[in-house]
Order: sequence, then C-alpha cells, then structure tokens
Amino acid sequence: MATIKDVAARAGVSVNTTSRVLNNRGYLSEETIRKVHKAMEELDYQPSAIARALVTHQTKLIGVLVPSISHPFFAACLDALERYASRKGYRLLVCNSLRDNEKEQEYIDSLRANNVAGVVISTRSDNLLPFLGGMPAVTFERVLGSGIPAIMCDNNLGGRLAAEELCAKGCQHPAIITGSPKVRLPADARSAGFAQACAEHQVIPLFYSTEEADFKHLDYTLAISRLFYEHPECDGIFATSDVIGAQCIRYCVTHGRRVPEDVKIVGFDDLLIASLTTPPLTTIHQPVNRMCKALIDTLDDLINHKTVQDTLVFPVEITRRQST
Amino acid sequence: MATIKDVAARAGVSVNTTSRVLNNRGYLSEETIRKVHKAMEELDYQPSAIARALVTHQTKLIGVLVPSISHPFFAACLDALERYASRKGYRLLVCNSLRDNEKEQEYIDSLRANNVAGVVISTRSDNLLPFLGGMPAVTFERVLGSGIPAIMCDNNLGGRLAAEELCAKGCQHPAIITGSPKVRLPADARSAGFAQACAEHQVIPLFYSTEEADFKHLDYTLAISRLFYEHPECDGIFATSDVIGAQCIRYCVTHGRRVPEDVKIVGFDDLLIASLTTPPLTTIHQPVNRMCKALIDTLDDLINHKTVQDTLVFPVEITRRQST
Repeated sequence: MATIKDVAARAGVSVNTTSRVLNNRGYLSEETIRKVHKAMEELDYQPSAIARALVTHQTKLIGVLVPSISHPFFAACLDALERYASRKGYRLLVCNSLRDNEKEQEYIDSLRANNVAGVVISTRSDNLLPFLGGMPAVTFERVLGSGIPAIMCDNNLGGRLAAEELCAKGCQHPAIITGSPKVRLPADARSAGFAQACAEHQVIPLFYSTEEADFKHLDYTLAISRLFYEHPECDGIFATSDVIGAQCIRYCVTHGRRVPEDVKIVGFDDLLIASLTTPPLTTIHQPVNRMCKALIDTLDDLINHKTVQDTLVFPVEITRRQST
Repeated sequence: MATIKDVAARAGVSVNTTSRVLNNRGYLSEETIRKVHKAMEELDYQPSAIARALVTHQTKLIGVLVPSISHPFFAACLDALERYASRKGYRLLVCNSLRDNEKEQEYIDSLRANNVAGVVISTRSDNLLPFLGGMPAVTFERVLGSGIPAIMCDNNLGGRLAAEELCAKGCQHPAIITGSPKVRLPADARSAGFAQACAEHQVIPLFYSTEEADFKHLDYTLAISRLFYEHPECDGIFATSDVIGAQCIRYCVTHGRRVPEDVKIVGFDDLLIASLTTPPLTTIHQPVNRMCKALIDTLDDLINHKTVQDTLVFPVEITRRQST
C-alpha cells in the first residue's frame, strides 16, 4: 500500500508539503496541489483516517449511547442518526448500554480512547458527566445539565393530547402506564401533562409503572394485567410507548375487552408497530427525523466550536387511528 | 491529560519500556510492569486507542454494514452483535447502506480508512469483494464467495416448514410473498423449499414479489393487494418476513377475510412484532442470538489468524401461534 512518502516522492515535493495538501493547510500553489493529487491517484493512495486523527486530534466518529438497539424507538432513531451523520461525513460507533450504569461508564471511557469527535447520549444515568471529560456531547430525551444541549419532544404536550383524546371519547376511568419511576427522565412530563389535562376534565387517572426488567425484555404484560385485575372498570389507557400500547391491545383482545368500544388506547412514538396492530393504534407522533437531524447538527456545531442552544423541544401531535 | 512520557518519567523507565508494557511485548521484569502500572494509575493515564492502533495496525472496531437499521430483523441482529462484540472488547461501527451499492462501496472505503479490525456484511451487492482489500470479513445471509465465511439460517428448511404448515391446515391455494427478485440472496432458498414441499402435496403455489422501494419504506401493501385482486381464491400466505406477515394480517382483517379461518399466514424471523398482531403470527424462528454469536466468534478468529469454517447454516423451527 502506498504511503505519504511514496506520494511525496512521485509528486517531487516534500512529505511536509504533501501532508499540507492532504490537510488543506497553509499556502499551496495550484501546481503543487495538482501534482500531489495526480500522484495520489496514480498510486491509489488512501490517507489513513487514523494517521490523520493523530495530526488533527479529531476523528470523524460519533459515539451513540442508547439503552437498547432493538427497541423500535431507538432503532428508528439510530437509522435517522446514521442518515444525517453520514451526510456530514461522520460514522456512528453504536453502544448498547442496556441501562447498565457501569457499562455506560466503560463505553464512554472507550469512546474517549477511540478519540470520537463527539457523543449522542440517551441513557438513564445521571452520573456520566465526569466521564465525558469535556467531549462534545448532546443528549436525547435526557438532561445531564452543565450546558450539555438536550433535545427532546414536548412530553408534557404529548400527555395532554392523550388525556384530551381519552376524555373526549368519554373515558371515565383512564390509566397511564409509564416506564420505571426510579430515575427522572424528560418523559416523566408525559404523566404530568396527562394528569393536568385529566384534572381539567374532572377525571382522576390511575397510575401504573413498569419495571426496568420489562423494558429489557420488551414485555409489559405484568403491569397491564395488574391494572385490569385491580381496576376492572378501567376504560382508557395512555401507554407511554407504542410497544406498551400494542401489548395493551393484545391483552384486551385476548381477555374479552373490545378496543375501542370497552377500552380506548393511546400510544406514544408513532412507529411501524402502531399501524400493524388490530385495531391500529392511535398515538402521539414524535418527529424522530427532525429531532435526529437537530442532534447531529447541534453536535457538529459543538465539534466546530460554534454556539448552540441549550435545549431544543420539538412539538408532538396526535395521530388518530382506530384504538380510540 | 497525562502522556506516555509522563508515565515513563514517573515510573523511572524509558518511553520504549513503557510502550512495551502497554503492548505486552518483549521481556519485562515483574518490577518494571508494577512500576509502570502504578504510574499509569497515579496519573490516570488513558492509553490512546488511536496511538496504539498506529503501532499494532489494529483497532478494536468492527464495521457492520446492514441494509436498514430500523428494519426489526436487522435491529435485533445489531443488538445481539453489539452484545457479543462488546464481550470481546470490540465496538461496532454501524453503517446503514439502504441497499445503495455506491454508498456500500463508500462505507467500506471509510471502514478501511478507520482501520477497523474486520467487517460484518449483510448487503445485496455482489461486487463488494475488491473493495474489501483483504480485510477480515464475514457475511450474514449473503454469499460473497472467495473464502469469505458466510453465516445464514437454513432458508430452504424454513420454506419447507411453512409449506408443510399451510398444507397440513388444508390450504389449496397458497402463495408466497418474497423480497425483490433482482438480486440473488440465500433467502431465495425460502421460495425453493416452499415450492418443493408444496409440490410434494400436489399443490402449486402462487409467487408474488415485493419491490426494493417496499423494503425501504417497510410497506408491502401493494404486493398483498395485487395478490388478492388477481387471486381472490388465495387461502394461505407464506410471508418471507414478519413485517410482511403482519401487514398480510392487517390487510385481511380490513378486507373482511378472517385469519386463520379464510386465510392462513406464516411469517419468517420470529420478532417482537409476531406476538403483537391479532391474531399473533405463526412464524419460522431464526436463532438470531446464536447466529450473531457465531458471526462475532468467526470474525474474531479471522482477525486472530485462526482457521474458520467457510459456511455455517443454522437450523430453523416453526413457532405456532394463531394465524394458521
């Protein structure tokens, strides 16, 4: 394989000049640039990204820390992040933390060791800040504070819209099924918005939460069956993800409760799965593509030392299907 | 941040010796190793993965080329690949080719430039071989030839099991809905196995294929509605993915055909979505976890210059739910 020395020799210039052409640095005559490019082409020279990273102290790698790659929401996010990152010449280093705090710290150490240009973080842990060591970072549906930009959807509005829908369709005993309550997340605002809007309709909602283990196995049956065992009068559910919503529909169908006649269900996310249940799921639509574009744009700005906004909140809307 | 020079100075040894300790190379006394490790700890020294890669010409990065991160099958694979890779100290560089051949070539060039230790490839293109330039590579449900190990499930058996199930349940006019027929893939054997087993039951199946664009948007409604428009007598479908199977169920339900009474449906993959449709989907179970472990083990062996098997085919089985 040709080296930078071979290119320099063939072009008849110094290695230093060749390196300046490669990194587009300092004054260079048109003629010099042409000669070096011609030599590179003739020798099929591939500049090593690693060698260049040592000089520039920057790779074109972005680390992405998500709790679960196979969760449909994070899969959709990764797909969109990869698309926008790739347009700016970045490659994604993907880490699956499975919400294991120790693993998250190890991952961040390893991303630093790989000199990533920056990281996109979507984890539950609130103690990762010291591990970042000043790396450009953006969070997604998480708030780490200390000026690290956070991008999220308007979770409170999502909760309000779900409550408005269930109340408008006549639900008297609505319930909300949330994630694990142990850690504070922006998504908690979904419950708050739901409770506020229910109160405005003089309705008191039931609160049910799922466990960390349910998220890991994407199986929320336990929380759903507990809800109907303790409150058979429940006639509406705000499921805070489409996966939970789809499992609510399955549970109702197999336990003789008609959707939407007996129980009305609203999901959250608006993923493929929402259109494949029977009946299809009414849900709160998150603008995943726009949010992921903003994540990459913000991180790219940080990497290039530009000023960025602290928090970006994207509006959500309701997508009505046949489960309400 | 501490450098290798700081560590050497503090340990009272040369930079060369320190580097030998870091890379575990040549003769080193216990005492020297102890001193260097102590200095590293005291200075909180993080050896740069990039600097080490320049010395060893090897990173602990694995490139993964998939057609679509958000397709539930590939999302499940990425999740499992990341889990097994992480256990061996590798990080994944994930590339979403969207089946664009030019993009796939660019990705491979960029993975080489990042000195990845090896690649896992699952693409449609059959012209990627020259771009690999001898990098350790393993394919997944693809065959590139030239001694590149291929890992796949027993697609022919999967097709046979689907046909056996539909015929046993009395289907007279079964159909198969496949991917785009333009490129040859191991998954084509699903059709062959299906046709063979149908023939053994004196049944002639209908063949319908989807388009590349359908895969991109995960929307197969066009092929499904064409099937029922042209062959209203169709009473059984072998959908060659769970996503297609779930959409067949949705189509039947919304067009007054009962599943399984009027139309029996078998999917392929056995993903989360198969248990969330109404009725839940009978499907061919692929051992995704075992296959992904084999992919990482094989690639790790190649990276470490061990002998590996050319092709590994994993058996599949049928998971019966209520769609047949």
